[in-house]
Amino acid sequence: MTRGKFIAFEGGEGMGKSTQARLLCDALEQRGIEAELTREPGGTPGAEAIRELLLHPPGEGWGAQAEALLFAAARADHVARLIRPAVEAGRWVVCDRFLDSSRAYQGSAGELGDEQVRTLHAIGSGGLLPDLTIVIGADGDEVSARLRARDGDTSDAIGGRDETYHRSVNEAFERFAEEEPERFARIDGTGSIEGVHARIMTALAGLLP
Amino acid sequence: MTRGKFIAFEGGEGMGKSTQARLLCDALEQRGIEAELTREPGGTPGAEAIRELLLHPPGEGWGAQAEALLFAAARADHVARLIRPAVEAGRWVVCDRFLDSSRAYQGSAGELGDEQVRTLHAIGSGGLLPDLTIVIGADGDEVSARLRARDGDTSDAIGGRDETYHRSVNEAFERFAEEEPERFARIDGTGSIEGVHARIMTALAGLLP
Repeated sequence: MTRGKFIAFEGGEGMGKSTQARLLCDALEQRGIEAELTREPGGTPGAEAIRELLLHPPGEGWGAQAEALLFAAARADHVARLIRPAVEAGRWVVCDRFLDSSRAYQGSAGELGDEQVRTLHAIGSGGLLPDLTIVIGADGDEVSARLRARDGDTSDAIGGRDETYHRSVNEAFERFAEEEPERFARIDGTGSIEGVHARIMTALAGLLP
Repeated sequence: MTRGKFIAFEGGEGMGKSTQARLLCDALEQRGIEAELTREPGGTPGAEAIRELLLHPPGEGWGAQAEALLFAAARADHVARLIRPAVEAGRWVVCDRFLDSSRAYQGSAGELGDEQVRTLHAIGSGGLLPDLTIVIGADGDEVSARLRARDGDTSDAIGGRDETYHRSVNEAFERFAEEEPERFARIDGTGSIEGVHARIMTALAGLLP
């Protein structure tokens, strides 16, 4: 049994990650590759329950530490119950956000350091990394325009943070892609949906059977 | 403003921790010391929501890693929102279970090592330790008898684990108290409730004003 591949999509709010993850799954299925589309936080019943706590916190809202631990707990469940079993059974997993979102949101734009986020991932999920992480990016002005266009969709505890926070998140993703070029593919998120999808398929060519 | 004291009660199931924590609070109040009674997992709205997920897991139940991360997340919220502010405002906090329960249940009887549980506590709660941790214990036969007596009260995901697990938890608490005698007071939990309470007040004498 050939191990499946694990592909993560990363990027700031409004970059088209969910759309592109779905298009990739469809394209894989058309090539006869069984693929599971999933997302973080969430993807399993346990992790979806944690997602609900993260996006709609009871009480005063989570501090940085509790938030990072909850993301790591959701990821641990997702990895143990869905991602590892699927990949080991030969299926591909396409995930909308993974570890690098925690690095960008909690570790870089938030109060925790990158090392603490990575330590939580080592303890929770054995440090599992995707075979390829696709960062969908754009320049700063485009990022700002897309954030403003999403104003009606920022009602949860994380999406609703201010523009400075979200610009810092986008810059963190760009930096991660520069620091580890072998692990990331940085994809230009501007232009048509089909154009972005085509660039993603090109970036994935080396992993396809 | 004098800093308040933070006292934790630890021990296996059925050892009388909750009763003794309440009696200690009453005794402190009678001496004019403002004291807050709290518990883990829980104690704040956020941590109580996590407690609900821990004791009644959605889906297949939590793996060891996700469970440990959820306990650490609940503790981080509890420490940041209740324990630290109360102690800094001069109040005493009396807590039914704290870090050493995670060390005994997840770190020793469970799959994680002690070092990983301590690392999660360092990241989540800055490694905060109680001023004194009271371990209520008994010998192995008494522990088994109390576990059997609690049969009607073991419907949650942790209390309901088997006797071997719970004996291992009790042994872990005894070991912790031996390893760090300055941080723990090991109290004999047999005999009358009033007798156990008197032993606890004696152990606390050095901390009382």
